[in-house]
Amino acid sequence: MKKMEENSRSKMRDSTTIHENSSSILPESTPSRSPRSTEMTASISLGNLSGKTSKASSSLISPQNGDSQWHKNSPSKIVSIKNWSISTYKCTKQLMYEKFGKSSRTMDTELENQIEGLRDTQKKYANILRLVRTMTSHFYHVVQTQHLMGEAFSDLAQKSPELQEEFLYNSETQRNLMKNGEVLLSALHFFISSVNTLCNKTIEDTLLTVRQYETARIEYDAYRTDLELLVQASSSETNSERLEKAQTNFERHKMDFEKLRADVVVKLKFLDENRVKVMHKQLLLFHNAISAYFSGNQQALEATLKQFNVKVRPPNSALPSWLEQ
Amino acid sequence: MKKMEENSRSKMRDSTTIHENSSSILPESTPSRSPRSTEMTASISLGNLSGKTSKASSSLISPQNGDSQWHKNSPSKIVSIKNWSISTYKCTKQLMYEKFGKSSRTMDTELENQIEGLRDTQKKYANILRLVRTMTSHFYHVVQTQHLMGEAFSDLAQKSPELQEEFLYNSETQRNLMKNGEVLLSALHFFISSVNTLCNKTIEDTLLTVRQYETARIEYDAYRTDLELLVQASSSETNSERLEKAQTNFERHKMDFEKLRADVVVKLKFLDENRVKVMHKQLLLFHNAISAYFSGNQQALEATLKQFNVKVRPPNSALPSWLEQ
Repeated sequence: MKKMEENSRSKMRDSTTIHENSSSILPESTPSRSPRSTEMTASISLGNLSGKTSKASSSLISPQNGDSQWHKNSPSKIVSIKNWSISTYKCTKQLMYEKFGKSSRTMDTELENQIEGLRDTQKKYANILRLVRTMTSHFYHVVQTQHLMGEAFSDLAQKSPELQEEFLYNSETQRNLMKNGEVLLSALHFFISSVNTLCNKTIEDTLLTVRQYETARIEYDAYRTDLELLVQASSSETNSERLEKAQTNFERHKMDFEKLRADVVVKLKFLDENRVKVMHKQLLLFHNAISAYFSGNQQALEATLKQFNVKVRPPNSALPSWLEQ
Repeated sequence: MKKMEENSRSKMRDSTTIHENSSSILPESTPSRSPRSTEMTASISLGNLSGKTSKASSSLISPQNGDSQWHKNSPSKIVSIKNWSISTYKCTKQLMYEKFGKSSRTMDTELENQIEGLRDTQKKYANILRLVRTMTSHFYHVVQTQHLMGEAFSDLAQKSPELQEEFLYNSETQRNLMKNGEVLLSALHFFISSVNTLCNKTIEDTLLTVRQYETARIEYDAYRTDLELLVQASSSETNSERLEKAQTNFERHKMDFEKLRADVVVKLKFLDENRVKVMHKQLLLFHNAISAYFSGNQQALEATLKQFNVKVRPPNSALPSWLEQ
């Protein structure tokens, strides 16, 4: 982490140099930054731009296959590094300015609330998943012990004529509980597996797009601020050229941002429908299976598993792998 | 252990010396003993005679309170040590001869079968106790997790209008299960505590008398063999004196043996009645509580606890100490 931060700081120094040569429209009173706040902002920017970073580094590595190719391609590589550095610098600056309230940011309260809600939902479902896993693990051991108790009571029933009846009915009860327990374990397994997919795959996939969208928003705002500053500056020939370039950059990042925003909106909508459908089914299964088991209703328990197409695990199989997922 | 064996071997060497001076009726062809078999017999003898050993050592230690008293009492102490050593030697020899079929032993097949049966019963009840403890421990954690799940589902019901109903009924089910679980835990606690007392106190107390009886049997047989050998030997004045002494010893050990035998018979009878009574009650409680809980019959579960005078533990108390007993 320390190394990463130092790395990003050195990148920032490079990009600062490039920028100072290519632009002079920055407000002269750049806010004095403490080393601490720089580190923080830089590491945030690096996290959000990780996609970009890996792109840049892969184009750096690939030409090393042949030395001649490296020399031939090097000017375009240098341009690529330069562009990436400028972008990183712009985004870091934008984040920092937003943090200190010196720059405006594009707000979409409704969408941001939805995203916040999704993150909260993921956290809460992960907690349910953890609890059901814990409960299932302990219940698995209860069932294993019931199996052993059924055998121990049966053995004692054979060898204790004076208490035969008492040992016999206890043995039968434990054996029945063990059988029903295996069926309930299959239902719990199904619940865990489905909620795990929802929580750690389906929701996670949408949150990946959300993170890309958040990065695109920062880039868009950075290029928008650039353009606005240029428009305010006095016009000259050099400036008009720059203005044109800034306008192009702004349009490109606006398009990227809007595309990702649309993606997020669509994904959130579909995810929400899917999530409600999956959770409705799983919560019903969980409730019906638990209720049937703990009211000793074997028929209802088996009917529930059939209704939800849950296969019953073979009894006495070793500690199932899904307990350790 | 190693030290104990060496200790007992050195005691045996002492007692051999004493015996060679005081008696010459041993068969000349004392079976050659490997160090291994000596060790085995010695350690058996030591185990059986532990009561005697501690007596002897306490009479050795007590006079050290005052030096003068030590010197005054020393002749009687030496006699006491001598007697103890002779007894230890006789018993060790008796055990060894029995092992190699060179000496007869007093058999009481019916009583010995009863004792063997009691030891087996203790082992089997201890196994049941261990299993119920394991089951209770896991079940305790299931109940704790149900408590947390009840809260987590309730929290989600408040915050998810789209799945409110599903979260609500799951929350209610878990809370009910948690409450009933606490009641079942009290019943399991009562079973564990009662069977633990039966197994590790009541039965153990009788088995202590059994071990004293077994030691007395060996001593009795040792003095009986001595007397028989003396009777067979040619008569002389020295011999008649010895015969009288052997007769007295034999009578004394016979009385001890018969008294302990009677104790064991009485204790076994009362223990058996007590054991059947306790186990009948506990097995009924265990079955009724488990059946009521796992058929969701809260009224029956509470009625069972009332019937057996079991107090319900306060809910959410820390991991009860009886799980670690």
